[in-house]
Amino acid sequence: MNKQTRRTFLASAAALTAGVATVAHAATTSPSTMETKNKKQLAHHVFFWLKNPGSKEDLQKLLEGLRTLEKIETIRSLHIGVPASTEKRDVVDNSYAASELMLFDDLAGQATYQTHPIHLKFIENCSHLWEKVIVYDSMDV
Amino acid sequence: MNKQTRRTFLASAAALTAGVATVAHAATTSPSTMETKNKKQLAHHVFFWLKNPGSKEDLQKLLEGLRTLEKIETIRSLHIGVPASTEKRDVVDNSYAASELMLFDDLAGQATYQTHPIHLKFIENCSHLWEKVIVYDSMDV
Repeated sequence: MNKQTRRTFLASAAALTAGVATVAHAATTSPSTMETKNKKQLAHHVFFWLKNPGSKEDLQKLLEGLRTLEKIETIRSLHIGVPASTEKRDVVDNSYAASELMLFDDLAGQATYQTHPIHLKFIENCSHLWEKVIVYDSMDV
Repeated sequence: MNKQTRRTFLASAAALTAGVATVAHAATTSPSTMETKNKKQLAHHVFFWLKNPGSKEDLQKLLEGLRTLEKIETIRSLHIGVPASTEKRDVVDNSYAASELMLFDDLAGQATYQTHPIHLKFIENCSHLWEKVIVYDSMDV
């Protein structure tokens, strides 16, 4: 390799190495990694009891409504669930029909969600389906 | 660049590029990303009410006990929280003292947790602190 070629190669190699470093940095500080490993978050967990607990159709409508919420940009992680078939114990409440669990970065993210048009539309379309809702908002310590 | 040098450079560049690709792949399929984006998980959310609701000391003991649980290997994500200062609404229950939110890959992961020595030790050390516990187990749909 002559000096010029070597200089070009080293520059290219450095650029590529820098590229690796950037990607590696992104990998260790990506939102998903930070969510689960480092960053304190706000968990917003809502449990829904249906007016017609036996109606699979109403449950599907509610689950479909809940899925529209995922487009709200301040939601970092969304889990839409139904009671799991874990062991029945006195302390376990499995009487609800569906649940939404959202993680937000902070109080502001949750406040944005509360008044977001997609959330308001969900309430407008689906609130006739439920008779009871319990909300737990927990901040990581 | 002569042919040999060029070949060497391309091989090196390919190796570096492969390095980038590997890191990028790791970034998109890391457990934390899968947890939040693709994989259906089981959320185990427990809310604790203290026997002495006003005791900061008892709350700290409980939170310290909860932190010991993070070493249980089937827990994919752990959030230990206290009521967040979100808007007070009729549907929001903020009467509890502390909460633990865990995500498991499946029912088996949660079952392993229930009988894990670290969990049993936590119950032995801390159960005298609480007067009520509510557990919600939700499976993603």
